[in-house]
Amino acid sequence: MKTKARHEVQRIKDRAHYDRETAYSILDAAFLAHVGFNTGSQPFVIPMLYVRRDDTLLLHGSIASRLLKAVGGGIDACATVTIVDGLVLARSHFHHSVNYRSVVAFGKAQPILDTDEKNAALKHFVEAMLPGRAVESRAPDKNELAATSVLRFDIEDISAKIRSGGAKDDKADLTLPHWAGVVPMKTTYATPIPSEDCSLAMPESVRRLFNT
Amino acid sequence: MKTKARHEVQRIKDRAHYDRETAYSILDAAFLAHVGFNTGSQPFVIPMLYVRRDDTLLLHGSIASRLLKAVGGGIDACATVTIVDGLVLARSHFHHSVNYRSVVAFGKAQPILDTDEKNAALKHFVEAMLPGRAVESRAPDKNELAATSVLRFDIEDISAKIRSGGAKDDKADLTLPHWAGVVPMKTTYATPIPSEDCSLAMPESVRRLFNT
Repeated sequence: MKTKARHEVQRIKDRAHYDRETAYSILDAAFLAHVGFNTGSQPFVIPMLYVRRDDTLLLHGSIASRLLKAVGGGIDACATVTIVDGLVLARSHFHHSVNYRSVVAFGKAQPILDTDEKNAALKHFVEAMLPGRAVESRAPDKNELAATSVLRFDIEDISAKIRSGGAKDDKADLTLPHWAGVVPMKTTYATPIPSEDCSLAMPESVRRLFNT
Repeated sequence: MKTKARHEVQRIKDRAHYDRETAYSILDAAFLAHVGFNTGSQPFVIPMLYVRRDDTLLLHGSIASRLLKAVGGGIDACATVTIVDGLVLARSHFHHSVNYRSVVAFGKAQPILDTDEKNAALKHFVEAMLPGRAVESRAPDKNELAATSVLRFDIEDISAKIRSGGAKDDKADLTLPHWAGVVPMKTTYATPIPSEDCSLAMPESVRRLFNT
């Protein structure tokens, strides 16, 4: 029996995508990953800010200090990103689902120690959160860089899984007196709240969020 | 040196909450968890639908089949839920952040084999996605229950972490010509798309999404 690769999708295989283009387009549409690693047999899953650079994810967050202690030349990790696109409401409980785009990436994580690399990484995190924001704010100084933990996660194996479209009801259920359909979901932005000590006009980066 | 508990928050400790009430209020506001477990030394993190019942999470998703194979009397797992509430835009790259509510729960996962428990679980998943929906759709039959994998995750240790409020700029940065503030984020619903073969009126559960 052939051993399954760790990134092979186990169920509902027609939702699976193994090309990096598809996976990267999902990664580039979000900025929060759930990163898993072990210390001994104990699994941990921690939310981290991330940004993709080529075949690498830069990771930033409170996991870093714990990981940095555990890490030597690299620790096995799994970074997962999920975007929920809608509720799928079927005539049966069984066929209820969500529309989503998810990526599961396997690789090794290691700390970035180089100051220039850290500097660039911080800029990339800011840009991943809000394009155009990096030049509207101050770059880090030496102390800030020293206080910043960034991990470099080299993507070895990756898979994407996408569910889209409507409810897939059984034929026998079509005559039931139950509504079926999809309720699309998306993340939206509300009116920005300036800091109390800030009387400047809203910057371009923020205004763009409301012009799209 | 005292060994740290696995659920002790490592960084920015004033954001940490260890009471179950706080953690459960976050869990009850979402329906997608990122669940981590190991097979050997390999960490996996998989998105799963969940619903909390008392001190237990019911888990449902494509992980189940892989987990069910790995599981005997229970497998160590970590379930993490993160809700992003806003972009925190500071004058410096360094103080950029996000407002969020997250929960990290540690416990053991095991399959639910009992038919009545599975039946109840499917109803709970539907309700977690959309309150009021369970009675508007057909409960599972015997074949559907047999085809459904549900895990029961008993919460042993749990912690929550919350960041809220504005940007925390350094005093020296307050005079910089950079806007600072928060852009609130939330998940919103767009106009429902009925199935092509459905001409019924939209149900109460869906209409409630737009009346709040």
